[in-house]
Amino acid sequence: MATRNADARPAPTAEPLGSLDALARALRCLPGVGPRAAQRMALHLLQHDRPGARELAQALLRASEAVRHCDRCNTFTEDSVCALCRSGKRDPAQLCVVETPADLVTVEQTHAYDGLYFVLMGRLSPLDGIGPKEIRLDRLIRRATDGVVREVILATNFTSEGEATAHYIAELLAARGLAVSRLARGVPVGGELEYVDAGTLAQALRDRRWVAAPPGGAGNG
Amino acid sequence: MATRNADARPAPTAEPLGSLDALARALRCLPGVGPRAAQRMALHLLQHDRPGARELAQALLRASEAVRHCDRCNTFTEDSVCALCRSGKRDPAQLCVVETPADLVTVEQTHAYDGLYFVLMGRLSPLDGIGPKEIRLDRLIRRATDGVVREVILATNFTSEGEATAHYIAELLAARGLAVSRLARGVPVGGELEYVDAGTLAQALRDRRWVAAPPGGAGNG
Repeated sequence: MATRNADARPAPTAEPLGSLDALARALRCLPGVGPRAAQRMALHLLQHDRPGARELAQALLRASEAVRHCDRCNTFTEDSVCALCRSGKRDPAQLCVVETPADLVTVEQTHAYDGLYFVLMGRLSPLDGIGPKEIRLDRLIRRATDGVVREVILATNFTSEGEATAHYIAELLAARGLAVSRLARGVPVGGELEYVDAGTLAQALRDRRWVAAPPGGAGNG
Repeated sequence: MATRNADARPAPTAEPLGSLDALARALRCLPGVGPRAAQRMALHLLQHDRPGARELAQALLRASEAVRHCDRCNTFTEDSVCALCRSGKRDPAQLCVVETPADLVTVEQTHAYDGLYFVLMGRLSPLDGIGPKEIRLDRLIRRATDGVVREVILATNFTSEGEATAHYIAELLAARGLAVSRLARGVPVGGELEYVDAGTLAQALRDRRWVAAPPGGAGNG
């Protein structure tokens, strides 16, 4: 007979599946993959896509061998300096600070920025013991004070940790005479006021821009 | 300036990331993993869990080498006959037919069944060109007509394809003198009638069971 909490216990006569179970366990190193999804993935690969599984294994081995950090911007690359830092087409006077390589890719996809980057590979998070040393802000300071960079654009996340990180970096760099800016906050493109949260709308009010300057001539920013 | 459909195009100066991109592409062989999730997984592994990535690679290689199908029940195993089929504790007169090894595990977790299994590794799906030959129903017939099996319990899914598969198998096996049953359909345990769909409720009405038999003595099943 079925018991009430049967699904919490392993089946007594279940086979020790060995390498299939080991694969399901190993798949749980992927972010967002729980035990059920991992089992589904393992069965799918074995049933329908063994060549894909072998290709994935090779890709994992190659990437964990080859991928390192760029000496200039700290993003992932296979060279000592990444292609973006080597590119002659980027403006070396602008440095955009992001938390992760994924954020760098996201900013690139806007096609709205042609300067260089610095990737923190993290954010300040005192509660988790991640301070300025752990994300090695000394490297950012060395990079930003190379004499060529004029403006540092802070593009960390607009979470409390990202904001705190931006604030901390801004003070460090302003003390060294650099112009420091932060991405604008406000109503998203296509946003309807009715559905925008109050905090964002309040910020959009505070940061409002003149569309026709008053006679006094006060501009914005 | 940002263009309207910027995110559809790759960044012109983006670095050819090589093995990182290759890893993100390879991760898309996993079911339910799209391009964004794959990129997030690749970056996570490289940034936070390279030992996990290498372990996953080994597990993939080992499983795609070692895992094969059981000669008796067709489920995944590393031996010629799986531990469940070899077990002396199971009732060999009952054979439960499921679509996938995951379904087998799900039935085992009920602790409500102590017979043996047959895993179809699929279902009939004429629109996809999957007929009786493709899921090799001849093997099931050979297995079910070994002279020991008395009852075949059809536990394919209650989707249209699963139902069609159960119907087809029932006819094949009934013609060979076997007793064939199908999992009961009805209101789930803990279900509230208000939230049960009409089709399920209609089935529960048709398949209702006597709790006090009428004077005539008609029982159920």
